[in-house]
Amino acid sequence: MASPSYYLEKVTKEFAKLPGIGHKSASRIAFHLLKMGKGDVYSLISSITELIDNIKFCEICGGISDNNICAICSDTTRDKNTLCVVESARDILIVEASKKYNGLYHVLSGLISPLDGIGPDDLNIKTLEQRCRDESFSEIIIALSPTIEGDATTLYIASMLSSLKLNITRIAHGLPVGSDLEYADSATISKSFEGRVRI
Amino acid sequence: MASPSYYLEKVTKEFAKLPGIGHKSASRIAFHLLKMGKGDVYSLISSITELIDNIKFCEICGGISDNNICAICSDTTRDKNTLCVVESARDILIVEASKKYNGLYHVLSGLISPLDGIGPDDLNIKTLEQRCRDESFSEIIIALSPTIEGDATTLYIASMLSSLKLNITRIAHGLPVGSDLEYADSATISKSFEGRVRI
Repeated sequence: MASPSYYLEKVTKEFAKLPGIGHKSASRIAFHLLKMGKGDVYSLISSITELIDNIKFCEICGGISDNNICAICSDTTRDKNTLCVVESARDILIVEASKKYNGLYHVLSGLISPLDGIGPDDLNIKTLEQRCRDESFSEIIIALSPTIEGDATTLYIASMLSSLKLNITRIAHGLPVGSDLEYADSATISKSFEGRVRI
Repeated sequence: MASPSYYLEKVTKEFAKLPGIGHKSASRIAFHLLKMGKGDVYSLISSITELIDNIKFCEICGGISDNNICAICSDTTRDKNTLCVVESARDILIVEASKKYNGLYHVLSGLISPLDGIGPDDLNIKTLEQRCRDESFSEIIIALSPTIEGDATTLYIASMLSSLKLNITRIAHGLPVGSDLEYADSATISKSFEGRVRI
């Protein structure tokens, strides 16, 4: 029979693979699982299996879904003329929570990042081009994070779609609502000047 | 059938119960599980079930064990005259890794913390007193963290055992090896002066 440390080390390694969990946190979690009581551990496990057994990614947009086509893509009341490009399926939930957007989505599943060896072919960019050719969008809103990778991906998509005569926009970068000018970094201040609007 | 967000929210809540994981990290983990591939998720789950099925807490010291009595308590080559008091089962592994100590252990399973409503009766302190009466220890080394709770628990144990005429010590508090005096906080400097030793 393997030693207690063997099982602890195995769980620790598995948890350390999850995003945001380092080796020390993973080891703390492993000990916590031992103290939690079997009932609580089984409810953690069953929530995981239910998740992966019931959720898939939508064949059209790449968002989460309980069917092959997600609730947003199959919703006839949504605006079929606007497409919002996001990095991950999670971003769809974030945009939906704002209740500001009623169009369709396209999930890239990442951003172009040459340093990490991620090029356009590693993302759902070809399918984006195909959708833009096949469907009759009037506007493509690119909603990526204002980082080097996000900006590079935005420019790549804009140039790829330039021949299609679409209205391509990106969401505004500037001071977050409720923030204080005094504490804003100069890159954000600079973006907020570039993107100033007439009042 | 429940909506995709239902399953995601359920997993997020379960992960947010684990130490060091907030709601946002838990939600990121839930999405990561979906992208991981079923094989990897099942190996995470099986590592958890193996852990809780195979590991128990030692009936004597409270450390982790694959039997009712752990490998340390049943090891006849260890020094039965010295007992080291630690906060958690994990601390045993940390002390063992230093290879400096060869005696027995006693796990308190927490520290006295009136603010969190944790008193001596919530910890394995009565069993510690019983062990000190029944066994023939010559030294009790208290190895708790140098925090308010750790110090309070140390003093409580020392006064509880004072009538037993045992040699009660605590591990040294001072500058960590490899650290720079310049960056040490004044509480640590103060402890290092109090605990100075003749060279």
